Amino acid sequence: MLTNSGGQVAIRVGVLGANGKVGKAICDAVNAADDLELVATVDQGDPIEQFVESDAEVVVDFTHPDVVMDNLKFLVANGIHAVVGTTGFDDDRLDEVRSWLADSPKTGVLIAPNFAIGAVLTMRFAEQAARFFDSVEVIELHHPNKADAPSGTAYRTAALIADARAAAGVGKSPDATTTELEGSRGADVAGVRVHSIRLAGLVAHQEVLFGTQGETLTIRHDSIDRSSFAPGVLLGVRQIASRPGLTVGLDPLLDL
Amino acid sequence: MLTNSGGQVAIRVGVLGANGKVGKAICDAVNAADDLELVATVDQGDPIEQFVESDAEVVVDFTHPDVVMDNLKFLVANGIHAVVGTTGFDDDRLDEVRSWLADSPKTGVLIAPNFAIGAVLTMRFAEQAARFFDSVEVIELHHPNKADAPSGTAYRTAALIADARAAAGVGKSPDATTTELEGSRGADVAGVRVHSIRLAGLVAHQEVLFGTQGETLTIRHDSIDRSSFAPGVLLGVRQIASRPGLTVGLDPLLDL
Amino acid sequence: MLTNSGGQVAIRVGVLGANGKVGKAICDAVNAADDLELVATVDQGDPIEQFVESDAEVVVDFTHPDVVMDNLKFLVANGIHAVVGTTGFDDDRLDEVRSWLADSPKTGVLIAPNFAIGAVLTMRFAEQAARFFDSVEVIELHHPNKADAPSGTAYRTAALIADARAAAGVGKSPDATTTELEGSRGADVAGVRVHSIRLAGLVAHQEVLFGTQGETLTIRHDSIDRSSFAPGVLLGVRQIASRPGLTVGLDPLLDL
Amino acid sequence: MLTNSGGQVAIRVGVLGANGKVGKAICDAVNAADDLELVATVDQGDPIEQFVESDAEVVVDFTHPDVVMDNLKFLVANGIHAVVGTTGFDDDRLDEVRSWLADSPKTGVLIAPNFAIGAVLTMRFAEQAARFFDSVEVIELHHPNKADAPSGTAYRTAALIADARAAAGVGKSPDATTTELEGSRGADVAGVRVHSIRLAGLVAHQEVLFGTQGETLTIRHDSIDRSSFAPGVLLGVRQIASRPGLTVGLDPLLDL
Repeated sequence: MLTNSGGQVAIRVGVLGANGKVGKAICDAVNAADDLELVATVDQGDPIEQFVESDAEVVVDFTHPDVVMDNLKFLVANGIHAVVGTTGFDDDRLDEVRSWLADSPKTGVLIAPNFAIGAVLTMRFAEQAARFFDSVEVIELHHPNKADAPSGTAYRTAALIADARAAAGVGKSPDATTTELEGSRGADVAGVRVHSIRLAGLVAHQEVLFGTQGETLTIRHDSIDRSSFAPGVLLGVRQIASRPGLTVGLDPLLDL
Repeated sequence: MLTNSGGQVAIRVGVLGANGKVGKAICDAVNAADDLELVATVDQGDPIEQFVESDAEVVVDFTHPDVVMDNLKFLVANGIHAVVGTTGFDDDRLDEVRSWLADSPKTGVLIAPNFAIGAVLTMRFAEQAARFFDSVEVIELHHPNKADAPSGTAYRTAALIADARAAAGVGKSPDATTTELEGSRGADVAGVRVHSIRLAGLVAHQEVLFGTQGETLTIRHDSIDRSSFAPGVLLGVRQIASRPGLTVGLDPLLDL
Repeated sequence: MLTNSGGQVAIRVGVLGANGKVGKAICDAVNAADDLELVATVDQGDPIEQFVESDAEVVVDFTHPDVVMDNLKFLVANGIHAVVGTTGFDDDRLDEVRSWLADSPKTGVLIAPNFAIGAVLTMRFAEQAARFFDSVEVIELHHPNKADAPSGTAYRTAALIADARAAAGVGKSPDATTTELEGSRGADVAGVRVHSIRLAGLVAHQEVLFGTQGETLTIRHDSIDRSSFAPGVLLGVRQIASRPGLTVGLDPLLDL
Repeated sequence: MLTNSGGQVAIRVGVLGANGKVGKAICDAVNAADDLELVATVDQGDPIEQFVESDAEVVVDFTHPDVVMDNLKFLVANGIHAVVGTTGFDDDRLDEVRSWLADSPKTGVLIAPNFAIGAVLTMRFAEQAARFFDSVEVIELHHPNKADAPSGTAYRTAALIADARAAAGVGKSPDATTTELEGSRGADVAGVRVHSIRLAGLVAHQEVLFGTQGETLTIRHDSIDRSSFAPGVLLGVRQIASRPGLTVGLDPLLDL
């Protein structure tokens, strides 16, 4: 049993998809953390039972939509908490996870589409600021190999802003454009204009611009390294044991 | 009695310091608002009793530290709510205002050092984000006629961030600097580095930079016009009647 | 005869359209300059002959496309140099001005669509940088009352960049987008993507983003005040006497 | 003999310090380029004669101040062109290289402190813009492990700007600061204020801010990956054969 410098017992962590780029980075981050102990790593072909044998308390899953449901079913059935960054969760899948958790009421599962704390805070602050400004637009900037425009994060940010403005009775952003070269004013996501930049030398960036009489507020998130999800994953690992049931998104853990 | 297009009775507003730059902008903003009616304007030499005679419900005071206490004493004694942007309030002055309000329990007074909503949100978001990042620095940028560096807003922002980090047990921002040309690393405000830019063509701007592994979050406020205080003042005018007693700062009205 | 503090004879300046917003700002700027003397101001209804009677050496024209040609014909015929910010010059008009100047070989006329030095430098630097980067996109940001998108400056900037890349044999910016919400990737100006933001609290801003492996270069111009044309106009006033013939654009005067 | 898809004979390239981080990246870049052929790689302990045996035309040296002079002496003596990113060249060392080149008049050596094209262009544009603006300040932002502040690039940029302003007779940036918290106004480099930010999540960034009446111009360079030197190194490799003698800095190759 590992105890850290403060005499505290370390949380026993397992990693699924441990050989992938992301998985390796998570193993590194767990190993570097004083209060966490990496007890088992599993990738394609390895028996998932290792997590039971090694007494893992929390397992991190960054695998694939095709296998993540089987993984989660196993973990929940064995009372192992899960922190999941794998994509592809729709309402049906979330409901299925909830049904498994109903039979294992002490187990916690966190499923988050984005573990970069900066991205989560950007969305949250954008939502809070939305009703105080006449105008809002979103710019997202990514490397040129990205296939979709706008990014999922930008789409979700715009939708959250639109909802917050609607709830507060704020009308559309003013716009006197009468002559437009097609596409120059961006895409319309629930009334919020979203612009997608694709540029060599960039990684993943997003800017939310708010404006009212004489002032603007800009919230910008720059992610220049895939490792930026690590602090968010560790936050989840540390908190999930005290949050039984299903938690969707990192927000609830931030206690804002 | 003025009613607006929705049939709602307009709030009766007076303005103190009505001939000053700021006062004029506030008169314009009140006149432009459907739900507010400008019923009296007072400047140096005018009798303050006009506010009573004109049945003003709320008076906005952007005057001078030398006269604001007399103004407030009169307004509170007459049960007129006040929204105050005049500077120079220390704890003694605030206590005195509180003592007057004790005798007029239905009257509300809002005293705020900064009515630019973007500036207030910047401080609030900075405070909320502070504990999630290893590093933080503040850059403020102003026109070259400014006499003090850093700006009061930057100083207060840094202090709020420092408090939030201390409360969460976050240590100092990492900094390996061993060779420094004097001044390059900025001023130290409670452990937070603050940098002051002075540049022709700027007005008043502030940027808070947070960073952790692989990602940064930037919150930037740009104020390019003195009129940027107007939306915050109107927010105060609309809400102060429902907030008896003393309110310091715009934050409580933002319901974040 | 006015001489400045250095004993130098001041240039005698006239202003056409002197009562307009821009005209007034130019009069102020001329009055504030030690080496310039404002000798005549003319607006609608005033006799243009005043410039001859007052011995004006240079006349600044910020008037209207309907009257600017008559103004210029008169000025050139009288050997008075002209600095022109009035819009609406096409090739035919420029040729006509050239034909007048052929008969008055010592007279200089400067016609520029943009006198903001920052805007001119942005275009010039963008043109110079264009061939060194794989990717380039343009973002222009304006107040929400602007009728056209993209701005004329952004359009011209993109076209200059496209020409410079074509001349250097640089191909299109890489872009792997396969799924696009309509408009998100901006407008296509000669192969360069241009994005138009419209936001309350802004005035006139432009950002050119270049990117290649591991690095980006951003050139940003912020204009927050109509007075930003003044330094460029004065530069023209000071130099036009030594540049007989027609000069189009501020660039040649910058000696880059 | 390698010919590329266009039938052109590839340039034969060698790499010194080939096993270092930078050296490996250069080998990758050379291998990826159609018009270059990697013919020899040398690191500590390997015989430098390999470059002669393999008929290398150009050798790239990213090694160490302790060995670079011996490397260069050998290369020049054998008529092999060199592209050098190793640091530590003072005037004495440059003179010594020049003396070797005097005996080998067809050989070219390029020694550059910075191969990131964006950094070089930033300095160049800053120098060009310097005389047109009343105000200028420099902000450099780096990861928190950097030992010196300000960065060498920021120092050099400020010095170039100061020289350009002095040559044009432009005075100091206006600054009305009378009350300053120590350090807030940054370091003074030849009259130009320089501010150094140190932040987790950053790599190497620099911003030059120019301002005059109503407008600002910002030139920003972001380098997020050590590979950003590669395009500049390849540019040097392709051009050095046609530039006999010593070339210092990448600028002359950019033909601005």
